[in-house]
Amino acid sequence: MEFDLDHGIEVLAQTPAVLSALLREKSAVWLNARKTPESFSPLDVVGHLIHGELTDWIPRVRLILEHRDSIAFEPFDRFGFREWMAGKSVDTLLDEFAKLRRESLNALRELGVGKDQFGLPGRHPELGAVTLDNLLAAWVVHDLGHIAQIVKTMAGEYRDAVGPWRAYTSILD
Amino acid sequence: MEFDLDHGIEVLAQTPAVLSALLREKSAVWLNARKTPESFSPLDVVGHLIHGELTDWIPRVRLILEHRDSIAFEPFDRFGFREWMAGKSVDTLLDEFAKLRRESLNALRELGVGKDQFGLPGRHPELGAVTLDNLLAAWVVHDLGHIAQIVKTMAGEYRDAVGPWRAYTSILD
Repeated sequence: MEFDLDHGIEVLAQTPAVLSALLREKSAVWLNARKTPESFSPLDVVGHLIHGELTDWIPRVRLILEHRDSIAFEPFDRFGFREWMAGKSVDTLLDEFAKLRRESLNALRELGVGKDQFGLPGRHPELGAVTLDNLLAAWVVHDLGHIAQIVKTMAGEYRDAVGPWRAYTSILD
Repeated sequence: MEFDLDHGIEVLAQTPAVLSALLREKSAVWLNARKTPESFSPLDVVGHLIHGELTDWIPRVRLILEHRDSIAFEPFDRFGFREWMAGKSVDTLLDEFAKLRRESLNALRELGVGKDQFGLPGRHPELGAVTLDNLLAAWVVHDLGHIAQIVKTMAGEYRDAVGPWRAYTSILD
């Protein structure tokens, strides 16, 4: 399916409510679960998504609109959130993400991004030549990927508890 | 992590709100997306979860409490929802699932299920010997697995649209 701005915004706009439903009023065993000591916990994912709103998605849209591919994107620091989020509650983080996402979607409208700009070229520091619609589609898929990561991480806590059902629960693979 | 009833209920109780955030007011391209013609669409998942509330989880809890492992569970018809859900809107399906899930969690409380019953034996028609807490943990993981399935299916629609970002988006694998 080709990228469509209205469809993409449907997903981007939903993510704060999805995260809120998944994480608000949850016990620490769910919020701080990790597959491995290096993996993101569900709470880390919120910090990572906040960091993306601040430094990644809209800043890269602006860069493409202003400079095309003459300037490469700043590399995204996937762990740049860790210091910033230390000590913040889940409610604070979810509220902050919801606010930033609203601001990002407002910026997208104010920048007048539409089909005519989809083919504009950008330059990723590692991936090379990309287009504006690649960037916007990647934003949507990035959100969905991290929602999947949260529910997989939570499910992993019951890897042993399901007993023989392990054979039927492919999310635990 | 061992199964814990309060933690499990936190997840089971959240699922209607997660599905609502993911699917309400979404375009047909998202609701009816499928990885393959045989795969569940996001809307099919809601139908499947409704069918589970009606025929699977609480009925099996009752069977274990009343008959232990002397009677095997009815096999679960994974596609039993298809005829039932035909023509129903996403809002109708989400409302129906939310109502049934509330009733299931009320039934769990009324049945007085607690730690003392966790080891009670049940018999799965294919998996064989299971315990009550295996069943309850599998219910939690089943919910989370189908949330992951929905977001993976949606993300798959932008498999090509992300362009070079394909290399970074493991949810598309």
